[in-house]
Order: sequence, then structure tokens, then C-alpha cells
Amino acid sequence: MAQNDSLAKFLDTAVDAAKRAGEIIRNGFYQTKNVEHKGQVDLVTETDKACEDLIFNHLKQQFPAHKFIGEETTAACGATELTDEPTWIVDPLDGTTNFVHGFPFVCISIGLTIGKIPIVGVVYNPIMDELFTGVRGQGAFFNGKPIKVSSQTELVKSLLATEAGTKRDKPTLDASTNRINSLLFKVRSLRMSGSCALNLCGIACGRLDLFYELGFGGPWYACTFLSSFLSYVKYMRVMSCLVLRDVAAGVVIVEEAGGLVYDP
Amino acid sequence: MAQNDSLAKFLDTAVDAAKRAGEIIRNGFYQTKNVEHKGQVDLVTETDKACEDLIFNHLKQQFPAHKFIGEETTAACGATELTDEPTWIVDPLDGTTNFVHGFPFVCISIGLTIGKIPIVGVVYNPIMDELFTGVRGQGAFFNGKPIKVSSQTELVKSLLATEAGTKRDKPTLDASTNRINSLLFKVRSLRMSGSCALNLCGIACGRLDLFYELGFGGPWYACTFLSSFLSYVKYMRVMSCLVLRDVAAGVVIVEEAGGLVYDP
Repeated sequence: MAQNDSLAKFLDTAVDAAKRAGEIIRNGFYQTKNVEHKGQVDLVTETDKACEDLIFNHLKQQFPAHKFIGEETTAACGATELTDEPTWIVDPLDGTTNFVHGFPFVCISIGLTIGKIPIVGVVYNPIMDELFTGVRGQGAFFNGKPIKVSSQTELVKSLLATEAGTKRDKPTLDASTNRINSLLFKVRSLRMSGSCALNLCGIACGRLDLFYELGFGGPWYACTFLSSFLSYVKYMRVMSCLVLRDVAAGVVIVEEAGGLVYDP
Repeated sequence: MAQNDSLAKFLDTAVDAAKRAGEIIRNGFYQTKNVEHKGQVDLVTETDKACEDLIFNHLKQQFPAHKFIGEETTAACGATELTDEPTWIVDPLDGTTNFVHGFPFVCISIGLTIGKIPIVGVVYNPIMDELFTGVRGQGAFFNGKPIKVSSQTELVKSLLATEAGTKRDKPTLDASTNRINSLLFKVRSLRMSGSCALNLCGIACGRLDLFYELGFGGPWYACTFLSSFLSYVKYMRVMSCLVLRDVAAGVVIVEEAGGLVYDP
């Protein structure tokens, strides 16, 4: 009971932080953005930083003994080691390019790991007012209603999501488009919405059947597929890696919705 | 003045029809769908048909002398010739695959041509409650507020939209992914949302900077790009064709927002 009380408090605090950060994102959504360039296509905005500060301050106030890992802290300080301690892993604004352009797939992603296992996940899209939550062993929810992954078992009827990524060198792009070419022969259609965390939540609520994304640059990797596609995708050698920062929250939501997250 | 009164009545009636059809779409959005297959990936649902009936009946009641062209009527009767008469061109549910999967990019598209020129356009996404309207010479609007296309002039900072289409033969898919490969070297990123009409509205409100889509199967074709990209895209030989049914409404909205729709 005491543990459940703690989990409930972790979840409530994370939801509260996400909603508050959501206000900042919503306010800035249609304004002209001050953009810093991390790379050609990877954007960091003032809003990104303001949201991270707000979320970390809010969580630290409630849980001063916990550890914290965020996009900006990781980028500034290099790889931050994940320990067994309760650790909040935050992406304050997933879908930064969408935010800059005003494309409505943006979200806050807040995950909590204990013993290195993701336990609590909160993903909030403040533009569409869509809140996805998950607590290990207690189910996944979309705006308070229980969700589960699609029951799809046929690749030909599946809606696949992936992303173009941020790398623009020829080997990466060629591999990426060749992979898309191979998969388009097999699936119903392809979506690219520009937010990893929202793609995971799309899997969790059954909007999407299959999602993979290549990504490097952080200390951890994970992958996600519906279990029914796993063997096929391995055969296709679609190696799918995601930085943990982008998936720490989504992994709980997907798994609690009955989906599978795969780490090669 | 009399003409403006007529245009206002055309617009109001189309918005009313779109909102009513939107209720049908919203109600069916999370239900299990009865799906007919037009092709491997082209889906027609009961909702599609119910929306077309509702919209046509609503418009015919107000404008019994007008002509009407819809997805189902065109599919059933073959190509319907566009005349100089006032003609309503309706896609009752653009983004049918999204509707079937519960992916929130679905819309109703209602356009009116007079003298073969698109004069009134209404595109409504009932899931996100986003209404885009345009009247030739009177501007474009998003939920009642004036919109204009992005001021982007650099391809490298542009967000490109396209779609995988419904054809899955090898020459088409290879051409499609080769085109994507070439463009990914040049643009910031790529989005595929699964709705042609909403992509057009994305251009109109500046969420997207560039959109092309291949499409055959109707009597008319059109293309859309921001004018600043036109010369580049022609150089790239990205021939972009859209069935008029999907663009009749969007073309007014894009052009009234300062964008360019291109027909090769």
C-alpha cells in the first residue's frame, strides 16, 4: 500500500509537471521561435529550456533525493550514468521541429526509473490535449481511459510509423530510404509525425501498429515493435534504436498497454 | 453585394454540412470499422458513405440546381465531367486509412467550383476540431482566424510533407522512395500524415512549407508547392499530381493564404 501511495504520488507529480510545462508549450506554439541549431535539423528552443527547468524544479521540490536526467543536462554534461536510484528522465519538448513549424505533434515526456526499470511514464501533447500515462503493473491510460495496443497480426493491414531522423549523410539516408522501400511493400501505409514519444503512445492506444526509429547520441538504446512483428522485423534487419530519453516514459505506457518494446 | 451574399451562403452551408458530417466521423472514430477494400491499402468505410450522403443531401436542399461530384459517385459512375456550372466537389472522409486506425488526421473536404475555378473551400478535421475555410478573393481562415503560408524561402529549413500513396508496385515504390531520398538531403524533415486535404491546409497555415503527392485515378490533376520551391522542385522533376477531388477545397485555402498550387 505504501508503495502504491508512492507510485500514485510519482504519477500525480509528473502529470502536474507535464500540464504546467504544457502551458508554456501551448503559449509558444504559434509565436515566432528563437532557434538554436544543434545540427542541421536538430533544434533547441527557448521553450525547450524553460520546460526542462520547470519540470525539474517541480519534481525536485517533491523528490529532492531523486536523480534527474534531461535532454539539456545530458547534452551539456555528456552521458549521465543511469543508477538504481529513482531517476527522472525527461524530454521537455519532444518534437522540437514540429514545435518550431507549428505542426501539432509535440509533447512532454517524463519517465521514472527505479532499479534502472521504467516504472512511471507520462506523455502529454498540450496542443491536442492528449495525456498518456502508465504505471508498471497498473495499466496504461489515455486521458484517463484504459488503452491497449491494436489486435493487428497482419503486416499488410498494419500502419507503420518511423521518422527521417536528424542525420543527413548519404549512408544513413540511403539505408533509411531503402528500409522504407522494403517495408512499404509489406505494410498498409506509413506515417511520420515527428515525435518519438507520441509514436510510442500511438502504438499504446492502437493508432499505430508498428514503430521503429534509428537514433544514436545517448547512453542507452531501446526499440519498440508490436510483438507480432518482432520476428519479421528482425528478419528484415531493421535495427531500431532509440535514445532512452525519448522512450523512458513511452516504454511503460506501451508495455502496460500490452505492447512490446524491443532493445537489440 | 448579391454575389458576396451568395458566396457567404455557399460558405456557411458548406461549413454546416462539414460540421454535421464531422459528428458522424467523430462518433465512429474509436469504434471498430467495417472496411471494404478498394485496393490493398485504399479503404472505404460505412462512415465515408454516410458522410457523403449527408453532405450531398444538405447541399442539394439549399442548391438544387448545382452539380455534385463525390468520391463514391465518381468511383461508381466513372469520370464525371467538370462543367462551368456551380459544382460541389466533395471528399466526405479524406484520410480513410487514418480513420480506420484511429490516427487523428482525418477530415471532410468540400469545394465549390464556378466556371471550373475553385471558389469556396472548407476542410474540417472533427477529431482535432480544426476548421479551414477559404473564399476566392476573401482570404483563408483557421477556426475563424486569418492564416497565411510560412515565409520560409530556404529548402534546408523547410518541413516537407508527402504521402506513401496507395500503389505498391515496384516501379512506383522505387520512384517514390528515390524521390524521398533525394529530398531528404535538402529539407529539414519529412512528415507523412495520411490526409491530402490536411496537408494542403498545413501549407496554408504555415505548419508545412512544401507538399507534393502523386495521384492518379480521377479526371483532373493539380499540384501544390510554395512558390519559392517551385523552380527547385521542377528541377528535381518531382512531378506531383493530385486528384481534384482531394484538392478542390484545399486549393482555395492555400491560394487565399498566399501559397501556390501547381498543376504540371
